[in-house]
Amino acid sequence: MSAAIDLITGELDTPFLAVDLEAMERNLTSMADAARAHRFALRPHAKTHKCLEIARRQVEHGAAGLTVATVGEAEIFAAGGFTNLFIAYPIWAVGARGRRLRALAEQASLRIGIDSEEGAQALAKAVVGANVEALVEIDSGHHRSGVRPEQAAEVAMAAARAGLPVSGVFTFPGHGYGPGRRGQAATDEADALTEATATLRKAGLEVEVSSGGSTPTATLADAAALTEIRPGVYVFNDAQQAELGSCGWPDIALTAISTVVSSSGRRVVLDAGSKVLGADQPAWATGGGRLPDHPDARVVALSEHHATVVLPEDGVSLRRGDLVRVAPNHVCAAVNLADELVVLAQGAQIDRWPVAARGANG
Amino acid sequence: MSAAIDLITGELDTPFLAVDLEAMERNLTSMADAARAHRFALRPHAKTHKCLEIARRQVEHGAAGLTVATVGEAEIFAAGGFTNLFIAYPIWAVGARGRRLRALAEQASLRIGIDSEEGAQALAKAVVGANVEALVEIDSGHHRSGVRPEQAAEVAMAAARAGLPVSGVFTFPGHGYGPGRRGQAATDEADALTEATATLRKAGLEVEVSSGGSTPTATLADAAALTEIRPGVYVFNDAQQAELGSCGWPDIALTAISTVVSSSGRRVVLDAGSKVLGADQPAWATGGGRLPDHPDARVVALSEHHATVVLPEDGVSLRRGDLVRVAPNHVCAAVNLADELVVLAQGAQIDRWPVAARGANG
Repeated sequence: MSAAIDLITGELDTPFLAVDLEAMERNLTSMADAARAHRFALRPHAKTHKCLEIARRQVEHGAAGLTVATVGEAEIFAAGGFTNLFIAYPIWAVGARGRRLRALAEQASLRIGIDSEEGAQALAKAVVGANVEALVEIDSGHHRSGVRPEQAAEVAMAAARAGLPVSGVFTFPGHGYGPGRRGQAATDEADALTEATATLRKAGLEVEVSSGGSTPTATLADAAALTEIRPGVYVFNDAQQAELGSCGWPDIALTAISTVVSSSGRRVVLDAGSKVLGADQPAWATGGGRLPDHPDARVVALSEHHATVVLPEDGVSLRRGDLVRVAPNHVCAAVNLADELVVLAQGAQIDRWPVAARGANG
Repeated sequence: MSAAIDLITGELDTPFLAVDLEAMERNLTSMADAARAHRFALRPHAKTHKCLEIARRQVEHGAAGLTVATVGEAEIFAAGGFTNLFIAYPIWAVGARGRRLRALAEQASLRIGIDSEEGAQALAKAVVGANVEALVEIDSGHHRSGVRPEQAAEVAMAAARAGLPVSGVFTFPGHGYGPGRRGQAATDEADALTEATATLRKAGLEVEVSSGGSTPTATLADAAALTEIRPGVYVFNDAQQAELGSCGWPDIALTAISTVVSSSGRRVVLDAGSKVLGADQPAWATGGGRLPDHPDARVVALSEHHATVVLPEDGVSLRRGDLVRVAPNHVCAAVNLADELVVLAQGAQIDRWPVAARGANG
């Protein structure tokens, strides 16, 4: 990748986000293969990349449809020709948002999350008669939105009574984002979805979809419990995934290309800060991101336009003006800050992809 | 503010950023008064708001010019008619960035930070003959970019030899961002600028500008040591400033208007997550932001589209569909995520301001 960095010098000002196309294609292939091996439908979460071009490639690799987080993202991807969308969020479908959903249902086949009777009723009212199915969100241990597995039937029956078809259940095992927690989170996910599915069937409802999967747990997911996985980050990976062991450094396909602007020996400052990388930093992270080409360096501080990096005593030196690749801790946050991604292949810039759904967060 | 929230229901989908115009005007007035009382030039940092309309109001309140962090921000504000700009950053002025700076110097009177001989030489070469002055960045204790006070003359002399006029010194006392640290940071700032100024004068250089000031330290700044303050956040304030004691809850002039989408008793989930609020969370913060209208509530977790809030046992309840104002921890990060700010005055939406320099981070 250093060769690629040299080639683009002088042409583009740092900091900017660059996609390593070969690494991205390897990531797309390996997740698609893993899904096929377990007979999971793969419904990648498009919030990670927000790019039509990448969604197109995911579908070419066999994705059954896309997952999105917001009505705004669904609108962008539907306008871009993606007509099988799951909004994996308990949308509160009132006012303007209800009207937007109704219009969207004319363009795309929609699945939408619900996690309460009131939410199901509002959604039913907003999309009445349209091509929309609901999935009940289950809390499998992350304790965010979602109901406990034993409450799933209650919500599903309320939807059915309101005239909203329910096709199954979904969960996000976000508690797998911690060192050594992936395996337990995958087990919790399977248990929660299995119990919720049984609850729905006992209530006389058919369950077509049992959807789970985050990048850390997707390859550990239980084929007996899930019909579908929804990983997002895998397309690019990031410092967090590498530190969790979900990927290696060569699997990181998106980095911020930055310049060393200040130096005092082993401590250097890069011009990629939190307004380019995002500020996500879980307590267990080693710092504000990682340098894939210098894995022993540490990003000890991050401010809006500065990444302060400490280099190991016995490693390479970096001088003012040097270009450095920085992997953000959380790539979804970094992408949402950029208007476009610069695409590099075989050491040359071959394209720029607009981040079509940047900022489409409502 | 609750009345304002009611008025806009159904019209705008949450989450979105709203400016409380009265609170903002009070903040502008009080900082301008404080600067005048100490005879400081006020050069507000425009990275906080990135809005031409707010910069215009700052100038009306007596600002001597604007501070920006990047060449991109300088370009936007120069194009908007602001011709006295300080890029408070050790710009590495090579390649395209050097050419952009040269073009910018035709439109505006520029001051630019330097913190090394090499940086000064590159800048001198890029802007030779143009209307540009350099300021030497001093490290007053934050240990990011900048040189130690005793090294200031070395950098300044290198700039002078390269034909780049030096008008003074500046620092950012960012180590004041911590509970109980504001006073010490203000003292460190004054000491560092005083020593750096003396060093330059001893080397035969004139020092016109001694520039410091962050929002937590601006009102504590030493009038004998500084000629100028550069606070940014004060225009809006945020959860961080309130928790540091730099402002009160009524002084928070920008919040994310969000909807309760999920609830399990005292634990509710709002639709404003880190893609709207930013993910900044210093170790001493109480959570991922604050609810100014419910100061005893805690934002215990923040993900991209979820703020998980725990309400006190004896306080109000929040129901699904309720609108809630959330103050981000770091308002600069939140603004940089938004395309526009919705302006509220006397309980009604009166305007929308484009975030003109959103994403102009290079």
